[in-house]
Amino acid sequence: VLLTSGDRVAVEDPGYGPPRRLLASLGLRVTAVPVDGEGLMVDAIPPDTRLVYVSPSHQIPLGMSMSLRRRIALLDWANRNGGAIIEDDYDSEFRFGGRPIEPLQMLDTHGRVIYVGSFSKTMLPTLRLGFLVAPPSLRTALEAAKFLADWHSPLATQAAMARFLADGLFARHIRRTRSVYQQRHQLIVDYLTRSFADVLEVVPSSVGLHLAAIAPGASVDRIVAILRRASAVGVECQPLSMFAAGDSPRAGIVLGYGAIGSEQIEEGLARLRACF
Amino acid sequence: VLLTSGDRVAVEDPGYGPPRRLLASLGLRVTAVPVDGEGLMVDAIPPDTRLVYVSPSHQIPLGMSMSLRRRIALLDWANRNGGAIIEDDYDSEFRFGGRPIEPLQMLDTHGRVIYVGSFSKTMLPTLRLGFLVAPPSLRTALEAAKFLADWHSPLATQAAMARFLADGLFARHIRRTRSVYQQRHQLIVDYLTRSFADVLEVVPSSVGLHLAAIAPGASVDRIVAILRRASAVGVECQPLSMFAAGDSPRAGIVLGYGAIGSEQIEEGLARLRACF
Repeated sequence: VLLTSGDRVAVEDPGYGPPRRLLASLGLRVTAVPVDGEGLMVDAIPPDTRLVYVSPSHQIPLGMSMSLRRRIALLDWANRNGGAIIEDDYDSEFRFGGRPIEPLQMLDTHGRVIYVGSFSKTMLPTLRLGFLVAPPSLRTALEAAKFLADWHSPLATQAAMARFLADGLFARHIRRTRSVYQQRHQLIVDYLTRSFADVLEVVPSSVGLHLAAIAPGASVDRIVAILRRASAVGVECQPLSMFAAGDSPRAGIVLGYGAIGSEQIEEGLARLRACF
Repeated sequence: VLLTSGDRVAVEDPGYGPPRRLLASLGLRVTAVPVDGEGLMVDAIPPDTRLVYVSPSHQIPLGMSMSLRRRIALLDWANRNGGAIIEDDYDSEFRFGGRPIEPLQMLDTHGRVIYVGSFSKTMLPTLRLGFLVAPPSLRTALEAAKFLADWHSPLATQAAMARFLADGLFARHIRRTRSVYQQRHQLIVDYLTRSFADVLEVVPSSVGLHLAAIAPGASVDRIVAILRRASAVGVECQPLSMFAAGDSPRAGIVLGYGAIGSEQIEEGLARLRACF
């Protein structure tokens, strides 16, 4: 509702592939903006950019949170340039400690941020339920666009989800799964720190269902070859290079722990280690 | 996946509003092609048209079926011009007699027809489930487009619907509801023929959950005023003019009977009659 074919949009590099491909399919010019330890490098956003897509709570794929300083810089950019921001806050329900930083949407005083959340991680992806919080100025247009695209999302699943939320069962489910995911996260970080220190550097993170590790000495091809061997012995990880939005893929791996039992993690990592 | 901004598409006039507005929202040039008693007037399709959207089983809103002759002419048009056809076959499950005519998709020997069906009428609209049968040449592109737009539709509802179909319960449900809808259809046709003959001409039809009647002597404004009065006494019908795709709205009414009990029909039509 905000963009027209040929407009420039910016995404994180490395970053999440599906929205990048969706934006490109709409005829938009997609620019990859590098990410450092504080998140999207706001100074590198091209001047004619109309919209920026970011994942500040849990950067996809690196996993760190965007610093408060960088968030304020991004909002300043939007205010100065009349730009819009899509804040993809997936995974934010699974914070394991550290001080939470205000979402961009809460810091925004000028109606620049479209906040997007999902039940894919907290519940299950097959639900296909998500939500957005938009500035009031956009609501009529967004409702019309949703109506044009598919009228509305299925009511039965929404009604079931609404009751699950209203009865407090969702909050309980999050508390319970958070401690499970925190345990898995810690198991993996401990193991990597202990046994992979010569080949991998863990990216510090305290949120979500995956973590990333950089392979400083390795080539992208070497990591891809290692992960192919790991896959052959039943260990599935993603190469960090898969998330490259620009021409500079980084060597590293992304480890998801949403679907693996805690008791399988050590064995899995031992097999992965043997592939290096 | 077939069209690009500025391409010309053709729709029926009168016709169904939502796809017309969706096509327009994509930057396509939408041309309204008139419908007569045999369906879309194929000779009136502009030469540069790339795609035609039609509802041959149960024309929206008039309710008649497209004749076999006209179907063959439409397929010939598509073959001669390299055009595509979207066949919206909603409501076709509720045929009350008369010889069914082959769907365009069955008559098509050149991969020109994209067949679209829905569970909104046979089951309930809140499911948001439909289906399409596309020529093999389009499948990869359609799957990519669906994946880009929303990955996939919710699996829980699809799994429930698949089991309902596999167990034969859907077929039984259709048989049962078809006889209910046929009774309502007949009640309305009989009543209109008996008591509205001076003001309305029923459009012959034998399919679906609604029927249309033309008001030969009336103006569009008069019909809209009558239906406003009817609404005030609890009777909801739609003016035929609401379905105009071009500049020539027709005076008439559309009566839906999917959601009214058979026992309420006579009382409703008596109230409607009093509004004329």
